[in-house]
Amino acid sequence: MKSLLLLGGGGHCHACIDVIEAEAMYRIAGIIQPPADGMESILGYQILGSDEDLPSLLTQIPLALITVGQIKSPETRKRLFSIIKKNGGQLPVVKSPDAYCSRHATLGEGTILMHGSLINANACIGENCIINSHALIEHDARVAAHCHVSTGARINGGVSISEGCFIGSGAVIREGVEIGSGAIIGAGQIVMRDVPSGQIVRHRYD
Amino acid sequence: MKSLLLLGGGGHCHACIDVIEAEAMYRIAGIIQPPADGMESILGYQILGSDEDLPSLLTQIPLALITVGQIKSPETRKRLFSIIKKNGGQLPVVKSPDAYCSRHATLGEGTILMHGSLINANACIGENCIINSHALIEHDARVAAHCHVSTGARINGGVSISEGCFIGSGAVIREGVEIGSGAIIGAGQIVMRDVPSGQIVRHRYD
Amino acid sequence: MKSLLLLGGGGHCHACIDVIEAEAMYRIAGIIQPPADGMESILGYQILGSDEDLPSLLTQIPLALITVGQIKSPETRKRLFSIIKKNGGQLPVVKSPDAYCSRHATLGEGTILMHGSLINANACIGENCIINSHALIEHDARVAAHCHVSTGARINGGVSISEGCFIGSGAVIREGVEIGSGAIIGAGQIVMRDVPSGQIVRHRYD
Repeated sequence: MKSLLLLGGGGHCHACIDVIEAEAMYRIAGIIQPPADGMESILGYQILGSDEDLPSLLTQIPLALITVGQIKSPETRKRLFSIIKKNGGQLPVVKSPDAYCSRHATLGEGTILMHGSLINANACIGENCIINSHALIEHDARVAAHCHVSTGARINGGVSISEGCFIGSGAVIREGVEIGSGAIIGAGQIVMRDVPSGQIVRHRYD
Repeated sequence: MKSLLLLGGGGHCHACIDVIEAEAMYRIAGIIQPPADGMESILGYQILGSDEDLPSLLTQIPLALITVGQIKSPETRKRLFSIIKKNGGQLPVVKSPDAYCSRHATLGEGTILMHGSLINANACIGENCIINSHALIEHDARVAAHCHVSTGARINGGVSISEGCFIGSGAVIREGVEIGSGAIIGAGQIVMRDVPSGQIVRHRYD
Repeated sequence: MKSLLLLGGGGHCHACIDVIEAEAMYRIAGIIQPPADGMESILGYQILGSDEDLPSLLTQIPLALITVGQIKSPETRKRLFSIIKKNGGQLPVVKSPDAYCSRHATLGEGTILMHGSLINANACIGENCIINSHALIEHDARVAAHCHVSTGARINGGVSISEGCFIGSGAVIREGVEIGSGAIIGAGQIVMRDVPSGQIVRHRYD
């Protein structure tokens, strides 16, 4: 079993640990987390250091997953992705055994499928994405790199989501809609037409 | 393994192929799809002809599933259902192994349970329905023939949905509510009271 | 296999029976249900008497689950819980094999996880709760005793729900939000900020 380094020790990391343990494909070597409050471990896994220790740790443990959450901005996760790659590290694809992923779908490196998520036929997910618990990516949909599709969101057939988007919990994107890069779709929004890059959708978008 | 003919080669067909492959109960013989753009196969399955070839194909392959989607109107799916029956064909019930169906529920012929859908105790689903990915049909609910319950919709306990309805993605129908035949419930609608036949619900219905 | 008494024979009981049968951990001894319309059994299980027979039945069958539903008020379920405890009875934790429960989560006695529900890492659920079909309790969330999290509701990371709340079907509670005791969140509500005790939320709560 390969060793895996986790980058970020907050709440999303707790959920990632649960998925990694359930998948039983990797041994968690420890967690990179800024020192705080004398905390030494998270769910039983050792804190190994902070961001500045990352380059030297990656020479020992080259496989790393970004376990920082993504509320709105993708910048922290993009920066960590870049540091891992620059230091010769690699990112696995992690899939909960409680998720379903079509054999006709593709997933980019560093992407995680949380429990109960579903990726249907012909869907294509980019690198470094979070497909969160109970989220649905329907047939022929495309989610570009560095996106977070939050809990229970539904991305319907043929939807296209560009890089760095946040799709809030329980949001519904109508089939065929295109979402521009960096857009933020609030929790529970119902998106019935295209959304330009960088736009924030906080109220229904008919 | 029996051979199965698929009628309709669009996006919903991609998702149906994924379910049929996952269930591993039927061998897909090929797809009926109007000729377009020189396309010869869909996810590796041959296009066998168009609607006019259907009667003769059904004599060779009598088992057929309607894989045309249903946005709003059920007419195309009803027409194909009638053609299959008139030509002596039969329609299987198809269930994703990633769906849950209570042993106390009943499903009509030609109905498909997509991945992650859930049919609870005492529920009754008519013929030729699509219960789409992550959709929920709760205990004691009734869904009549030729309905499409779209992705992630929730049909709560004791709800009754009459023939030919469309329930949009992420819609919630309150327990005990009755939906008249041919009604269209938009994506994300929250339906708290009965809906007459033929009505279109596009805004919350409190 | 231990015998289990069910208290309440309505629609929610049908769904509970399906979960208990699927889990195959307990033998259903029968159902406590007020006499009505000459009904003698529910999904094949015998009606054993009404509430007044409960103390004597509990001496024979000390394990009991409350299968009365909870729309809004938790009082009936709290009263039954108290009667079981006063008469020396015990309540099991019942989990659908189609639910996912993290090994880092805790569940109180008498709580049931319905099909397709998901309890993530570090979540803590109190006693006598219904976590209904397709409901999601995310990492680090807390649900106190006597709550009903209805079908498809999403309780996001770190949310805290106090005793006796009702969270309606398809509702979304934003990460970190606190819901006061006895609050009622309507179906499909999107709750973005804290809710005081006893409050009824019927329209979006931004």
